[in-house]
Amino acid sequence: DLITIPQNLAYWESIHTDIDSHLKKSIQIREPISVFEPMHHFTFTPPKTTASALCVAACEVVGGNREDAVVAASAIHLMYASIYTHNLLLETVRVGSESGPGIENLHKFGSNIELLTSDGIVPFAFELLAGSGNDSGRTLQVVIEIAKAVGAQGMVAGEDDGVEAEKLGGEVARQLHGCGAACGAIMGGGTLEEIERLKRYGVYVGKIEGVLSDEGKDEGVKVELVERLRGLALKELECFDGKKIQQISSIVGV
Amino acid sequence: DLITIPQNLAYWESIHTDIDSHLKKSIQIREPISVFEPMHHFTFTPPKTTASALCVAACEVVGGNREDAVVAASAIHLMYASIYTHNLLLETVRVGSESGPGIENLHKFGSNIELLTSDGIVPFAFELLAGSGNDSGRTLQVVIEIAKAVGAQGMVAGEDDGVEAEKLGGEVARQLHGCGAACGAIMGGGTLEEIERLKRYGVYVGKIEGVLSDEGKDEGVKVELVERLRGLALKELECFDGKKIQQISSIVGV
Repeated sequence: DLITIPQNLAYWESIHTDIDSHLKKSIQIREPISVFEPMHHFTFTPPKTTASALCVAACEVVGGNREDAVVAASAIHLMYASIYTHNLLLETVRVGSESGPGIENLHKFGSNIELLTSDGIVPFAFELLAGSGNDSGRTLQVVIEIAKAVGAQGMVAGEDDGVEAEKLGGEVARQLHGCGAACGAIMGGGTLEEIERLKRYGVYVGKIEGVLSDEGKDEGVKVELVERLRGLALKELECFDGKKIQQISSIVGV
Repeated sequence: DLITIPQNLAYWESIHTDIDSHLKKSIQIREPISVFEPMHHFTFTPPKTTASALCVAACEVVGGNREDAVVAASAIHLMYASIYTHNLLLETVRVGSESGPGIENLHKFGSNIELLTSDGIVPFAFELLAGSGNDSGRTLQVVIEIAKAVGAQGMVAGEDDGVEAEKLGGEVARQLHGCGAACGAIMGGGTLEEIERLKRYGVYVGKIEGVLSDEGKDEGVKVELVERLRGLALKELECFDGKKIQQISSIVGV
């Protein structure tokens, strides 16, 4: 594969491990089982997203401690899980069938539970954030960032009937990359400029992932597009200390 | 009507006016019109709820200023509006028809917009709260209260397939009465005990409204039930200054 991006895997894996263990502590299967079992399932079923990992990495770039960003990163993961679960449901509706090979594994719960859980995860994420015990002012800023990313902007993307559920989900999920990076920078105490730059960096990372996952596109076109986006992404990091950006920039293969 | 409850109307109307004018400032019809026009519509279409009014009244009972509670009360109204809009949609699905007398007025927008808007109002309410500029610690507590009321508890109520959409909505909406009163007490700087007592008072108020709106029940049974709930509600107010509770207790007709 020509455009596989080499990454500093150990760094990103350590971040995912930290987010995962926070989520495991926060979302235990407890009473009422009928709520927390599907919530647990839909939290841990989706593939990992770099949106939440970027949150931790951005915090570290601005000189913050990882612990300050882990709750925000967990909230970002939950929002992503909600979108992912919602898409699963919409996809089923679109295909118009709940049967087929492997569909039983995909749909462990009924569509009513898929809908209730994907909706219920959103307030739970805000509850988790608000109860984190991190700096209050920064936490409130993060609540605003995340609410904006999953709120009105998601609605704008969603109202276009021409957009397939899958693409729509991709669009909203991509918003989360910029949001994730911004939230990390906020929790790490970044300046307004640092927050803005890291947000744009996150948006480019989301776009690069979108290009790479687009199976309909010509490989040559993809390479060119990714190169251009990577250049724009790295430009946003120029104002930071060269040593500090080594890790976060590895996500675009530098 | 035997059990119409006389209220201190001027007091409650002044609260609704203050909440309304805050919501009107916050949700103006602006770009993107396709998002904010339906959001405006679904915010101002539902009948007034006492859940948001209780928020302001509870704040005043614990000695807080009305301005401290108006944003939280607006967020409560938005959550209620989201539930109300969701129910409108579910009711249409249940009845299985989008036609009928008056249905055009009820459904000014398509069902996709109803769904997207009811979902999108929830993060918007958190955004509004987080950006209020009120005390950070209290605001975060309110985020937690509201998230709990509309999150897992709503899911518990919703998973029971036997419950009709209308009743389910009633159930979740009732949670909002306790939540509203608790949030007001938090914003007004109430003690833990005051917050708990006002929350229970709110739950009783919600139950009383539920009984009164239940058209299937015998009038005699309703009178008896309301009397009992009113007694329990007023018991929760005993620890407060007698003069201060005059206004909030007028909602149960004292």
